[in-house]
Amino acid sequence: RVNGARLQSRLERLAEAGARPDGGVNRLALTDADRDGRDLVVGWMRDLGLAVAIDAVGNVVGLRAGREDGPPVMMGSHIDTVLTGGRYDGALGVMAGLEVIETLAEAGCVTRRPLAVAFFTNEEGARFQPDMFGSLVFTGQLPLAAALATVGVDGATAGEELRRIGYAGDAAVGRPEVHAYVELHVEQGPTLEAEGFVIGAVEGVQGISWTELTISGQANHAGTTPMRMRHDAGYVAAEIATFARRLAGEIGGHQVATVGALTLTPNLVNVVPERAVMTVDLRNTDNAALKDAERRLTAFAAATAAAEGVTLESRTLARFDPVPFAAPLVARVEAIARELDLAVKRLPSGAGHDAQMLAAVCPACMIFVPSAGGVSHNIAEYTASDLCAAGADVLLRLVTELAE
Amino acid sequence: RVNGARLQSRLERLAEAGARPDGGVNRLALTDADRDGRDLVVGWMRDLGLAVAIDAVGNVVGLRAGREDGPPVMMGSHIDTVLTGGRYDGALGVMAGLEVIETLAEAGCVTRRPLAVAFFTNEEGARFQPDMFGSLVFTGQLPLAAALATVGVDGATAGEELRRIGYAGDAAVGRPEVHAYVELHVEQGPTLEAEGFVIGAVEGVQGISWTELTISGQANHAGTTPMRMRHDAGYVAAEIATFARRLAGEIGGHQVATVGALTLTPNLVNVVPERAVMTVDLRNTDNAALKDAERRLTAFAAATAAAEGVTLESRTLARFDPVPFAAPLVARVEAIARELDLAVKRLPSGAGHDAQMLAAVCPACMIFVPSAGGVSHNIAEYTASDLCAAGADVLLRLVTELAE
Ligand SMILES: NC(=O)NCCC(=O)O
Ligand SMILES: NC(=O)NCCC(=O)O
Repeated sequence: RVNGARLQSRLERLAEAGARPDGGVNRLALTDADRDGRDLVVGWMRDLGLAVAIDAVGNVVGLRAGREDGPPVMMGSHIDTVLTGGRYDGALGVMAGLEVIETLAEAGCVTRRPLAVAFFTNEEGARFQPDMFGSLVFTGQLPLAAALATVGVDGATAGEELRRIGYAGDAAVGRPEVHAYVELHVEQGPTLEAEGFVIGAVEGVQGISWTELTISGQANHAGTTPMRMRHDAGYVAAEIATFARRLAGEIGGHQVATVGALTLTPNLVNVVPERAVMTVDLRNTDNAALKDAERRLTAFAAATAAAEGVTLESRTLARFDPVPFAAPLVARVEAIARELDLAVKRLPSGAGHDAQMLAAVCPACMIFVPSAGGVSHNIAEYTASDLCAAGADVLLRLVTELAE
Repeated sequence: RVNGARLQSRLERLAEAGARPDGGVNRLALTDADRDGRDLVVGWMRDLGLAVAIDAVGNVVGLRAGREDGPPVMMGSHIDTVLTGGRYDGALGVMAGLEVIETLAEAGCVTRRPLAVAFFTNEEGARFQPDMFGSLVFTGQLPLAAALATVGVDGATAGEELRRIGYAGDAAVGRPEVHAYVELHVEQGPTLEAEGFVIGAVEGVQGISWTELTISGQANHAGTTPMRMRHDAGYVAAEIATFARRLAGEIGGHQVATVGALTLTPNLVNVVPERAVMTVDLRNTDNAALKDAERRLTAFAAATAAAEGVTLESRTLARFDPVPFAAPLVARVEAIARELDLAVKRLPSGAGHDAQMLAAVCPACMIFVPSAGGVSHNIAEYTASDLCAAGADVLLRLVTELAE
């Protein structure tokens, strides 16, 4: 079993990198705070005797030799956060990987296959889109050059930010080859806690569709412009946002729809908005239903824009089909949890994860632990230390098994 | 008659203060660009021999002695603009005032009463609310201390900005007493142009209601949070924005409704918005109808917030009842326009103006000239030079009449 207190202490120290005055964490990808977090984790990797490799997009892999050579069993996740993030999303999977390594080292146990702990760049996609940016490059699903040229929401370029913070490494992208990938993560949703489970055996990740809409109308005077003469970009954005909510209800099932970002220009009380830039995040476990949602949203947006006499541009920020995890691994997560007397439930993941990208190149799976109140991407994100340790115990068992 | 070319040349030179690369003007109140514009106008006032007085809120009055002492006939408007403003809104009334003075000087004409040209601080209300800020203080309808303590949309304090740009003057507030006030302004709406009129005899200003709503919900993960568990501040804001549009249609008549500003926090693609701050601008010539609109908007916002489980705070940024202008003056505007063979129409003003505040302390009226395409608060705002001159001719006649 892992040392839950040691795991907790690393989580707490990592949370100091990018700590917000309100108790949350702001470690947006490739910022100074992200660099501070990276420096900490790389230091811990070296302390544990891991060989650290950093690739050109800033993915970091710490390798522990096995009794034999060959592709390692990899544990990992990410350490970037959203602007108003918590201490567990991503961090838990990486800290648990280190904890597994340290537990094995203390026990004098060397596995047959090598082990690796990785953290991938910009998983959140909050600063640079798409999300799962680093693991997409690692698995050959996003060209390196395109990744490095990506411009973030603040106008910064990923390649320049990597160099600036000293994490544009020289390790070969996509190396080492991976034997199997296991990611421990907080659920970030309400299901496990609400239904009294400790462990989630994650069956797969739902499909994700991110679109940016740019609506261009005509600035005009709020007091003098008759309603019928308006070309109000903000009004069209608001109609689309309320439609997104209705759409989720109409499609039903696992469908979710979110307008997370909306920026008006000039954004003044007495000026009809000239421009609105908004994002729409649509997700569904069922790809056909997701495509239906995309189609209906596109049609509604086009019709509403036309009726208001504004123009509409659409840009895909991310689009991933649902990804199933390797069935034998999902079954092993379930079985190990039962062996450890931990109440376990199979469920899909609502959030995107690096594991879904690794699944393209090796058998991959995920272990979830509950999120208090189902709250995530929020400074109040919380998972009790015994639950974190329970997840790490399952990780330890599964990884040791896979490495023999 | 005035010199239209000279009027035009001053308008163009003033437009260089805060000129935007896109051809528009950004001369938000009490910024460096506003100071540059003020310096220009004060220079012109001095060149014309006016005695310049600046009060504690930055209102500037240039006085020309008459054959007798006593309260002057005042011309004026404002020189601040919105962020994406044009060259005419406000500027025309002030430049025309200078042009009237210069025309009289050339003709060797000294009126019986003194004449004054004034520009009032922050009429737009784009940076500091309420609008008509300076003329409210001038007419005793906003306490000086409250005005100076006002925090703007960018966090700056009006009093500090006044000192910073050197326009916290020492003239007595509300002085000189005013015999009558006449403001020439662009219509900013479509009516005069569409119906083929050159001059608008403004009967009054419609009622204005500005409210800021702050909606506080819960940040959460866009992928994992079931729709029924959301407390989405952005969604509630969008519902209110679309309701505002419906409300204007339902109330009908002159009712307009605008959501010009909306800011989400944290404003990220995959985070359910925790906070939304929005403005609602409601206007109507009929105060009872305007009150009805306010009541219905408040009720809808409260019900929508309650249904989503978010809290709602409301703050009044500005509230002005409809203001009628002095009937004899409105009749004189109409008559003078006819004498000059200028097609004239009586109409209400959709925009707020300093004249409506001056109306509380003296007989006041306004002269409108057409806005091309009805466009204002837009970089493309335009009124042809012969129309500007026509308006200034009416101003010249009316002011000379009132000063005898
Ligand atoms: N796990 C997680 O929060 N990933 C961020 C990408 C997403 O929005 O799902
Ligand atoms: N004239 C003008 O644009 N005034 C600004 C205040 C308003 O929004 O009506």
